[in-house]
Amino acid sequence: MESAIPSHLQTARSRHRRVPDDYAPPYPSFVARHKPAVVNVIMAYFGLQYRGQPTATVTEALEQIAELFARANGPAHWDRAQYVDQAGFANVVSVAYWDDVARFDAWFELAREAWIGSDAASDGVGRFIEVLRPHVARYETLFSSLDRPEGVAVLADSMSGEVQEHAYWGGMRDRIALSQTDAMVPAGEPRAVRDGARIRIIAHDNLCLIRSGQDWSDTEAEERKMYLDDVEPVLREGMDFLRDDGVPIGCYANRYMRVVDAQGQPTEKSYGQSWWKSLAALERWAESHPTHVRIFGAAMKYLSTLGPNAKLRLYHEVTVAAADEQFFEYLNCHERTGMLNAVQGVTMKPA
Amino acid sequence: MESAIPSHLQTARSRHRRVPDDYAPPYPSFVARHKPAVVNVIMAYFGLQYRGQPTATVTEALEQIAELFARANGPAHWDRAQYVDQAGFANVVSVAYWDDVARFDAWFELAREAWIGSDAASDGVGRFIEVLRPHVARYETLFSSLDRPEGVAVLADSMSGEVQEHAYWGGMRDRIALSQTDAMVPAGEPRAVRDGARIRIIAHDNLCLIRSGQDWSDTEAEERKMYLDDVEPVLREGMDFLRDDGVPIGCYANRYMRVVDAQGQPTEKSYGQSWWKSLAALERWAESHPTHVRIFGAAMKYLSTLGPNAKLRLYHEVTVAAADEQFFEYLNCHERTGMLNAVQGVTMKPA
Repeated sequence: MESAIPSHLQTARSRHRRVPDDYAPPYPSFVARHKPAVVNVIMAYFGLQYRGQPTATVTEALEQIAELFARANGPAHWDRAQYVDQAGFANVVSVAYWDDVARFDAWFELAREAWIGSDAASDGVGRFIEVLRPHVARYETLFSSLDRPEGVAVLADSMSGEVQEHAYWGGMRDRIALSQTDAMVPAGEPRAVRDGARIRIIAHDNLCLIRSGQDWSDTEAEERKMYLDDVEPVLREGMDFLRDDGVPIGCYANRYMRVVDAQGQPTEKSYGQSWWKSLAALERWAESHPTHVRIFGAAMKYLSTLGPNAKLRLYHEVTVAAADEQFFEYLNCHERTGMLNAVQGVTMKPA
Repeated sequence: MESAIPSHLQTARSRHRRVPDDYAPPYPSFVARHKPAVVNVIMAYFGLQYRGQPTATVTEALEQIAELFARANGPAHWDRAQYVDQAGFANVVSVAYWDDVARFDAWFELAREAWIGSDAASDGVGRFIEVLRPHVARYETLFSSLDRPEGVAVLADSMSGEVQEHAYWGGMRDRIALSQTDAMVPAGEPRAVRDGARIRIIAHDNLCLIRSGQDWSDTEAEERKMYLDDVEPVLREGMDFLRDDGVPIGCYANRYMRVVDAQGQPTEKSYGQSWWKSLAALERWAESHPTHVRIFGAAMKYLSTLGPNAKLRLYHEVTVAAADEQFFEYLNCHERTGMLNAVQGVTMKPA
């Protein structure tokens, strides 16, 4: 058993963990370990938004971003997922990860201009870029098994052994190194800034992002049926709640995405991606909303019972980003897209 | 909105609450407020254990303890409840409350001798006494409504206004004043000491007791049906789990009691009373055991939906007792009775 916080990020605490030192979780979970030299990671979501079937413009844009990713200083890993949002628009999101700010910065300027610059403004397809570049003390991961990293964990040096801080409410916070000394309270309200056709969102300190995924590709027979019939509908209900009614409880936006393969075909993987006012708001929803309480109860029972035999794979990555670790830019997107949903009704100022 | 911790018990914190300062619970709850002059409260459980129908000895013993309660320095409040335990014995428990240690001490010596002394040793009926006398910083209460105090709260000076620290995991701990500065970690293992026919249990620092009650006497029609058909069976399942399989997770013993009236007839009130190795062990069960997660999920939905219209009344009192605030004595009880269940297989030493 080891701490989810790697030794080089352990500091003298002014804030306690939620469990006693002898706490033993009821089933194993693991976290991604970066090399100690890694200071920041970059999580960059490149979105495309359109109605109906993909046009040639859409196909070209998806090829374009893949080509940009393949260039010098491109991401160490990326994946792609899609969903139809509450306004009926298809959204295809290509998510790319780096663990070196200098490489990202060297890559990003050109890619940004290509993706969401003046050439893109008139093609009638919505574009967005959502980037966090958290210090490693500001994010955590969790995996139910060892051999298939996802998201930012693909960049990691290795997976941990069994970690202690999981399977209790508060484990998410306790896995973030900064929680040793900081309550990570949000400060300020998101605001929108217009820059020509583009809208930038300036959020606030300690904005929170979760990407929480499931992979049912290895499940068989009974377990598959249980996931698809019992778990997935409850999960979807929770995801729909966050998408449609999240703002009053601090969820600015939620996307329940289906991962696609290189040919754009749906795989047996999905993830929810949501933006939150604070880690505390995410904690409260997860702990008390009936849909998530049911998800959690089912997961606890499922994982405690099946143990290492469970073929369903679960993972997440949660970031609490400082104000200067965020970038949001939208072009031709509807007003409920991503962080635009956090500033509805707010008057925009020019940049 | 006020803190559950009364102002005279608020101190400079070395440990944080689990929620931010702007946390707003989704429905109201209340706590009992004692006069600031109250330093300790006493919770004393006088149990009677027998097989089959009550004999004359049983009836006389119940009359005797009621008569003792009525004497000078007797309790400010008491109630009675019963259940049939896992070994098939009927248990009738008379619970008495004081808020003055001197009065309790003046009363207890004679009552103890009468209840569990040499005269009682040969009457063939099991007896026990379980007493906590916590400092007021070591216990908390919670009520879903204002006008019907139960248990120790009957002694209180008043009920609070709406308190902030509830409806999230960790609220129980955050309502205990000592949590401001102390993790309340248990120290040591319970041991048994024989004193003639009586067995005393010496537990350990930070032993935890919960009395958690429900009163469905005011519910009607749909709400009553929902409680009895949907909630009570799930509650009973959780209570049975703690009674039969609690020890490995730190629950030494659990009784799921039905409150009786002055004529010994069942009322529409019940409570669970359980002894725990630590507050942390109680927290882990409540948060992760499927039966309690379902209870909690149902309660959150129920109370959030019905709001002030809910007629079901819920309350609890939770104590984390110092080693010198505990007293356990058993006579002619089977080995799974109360805190005896915590020392099964342990060799007893004479007092």
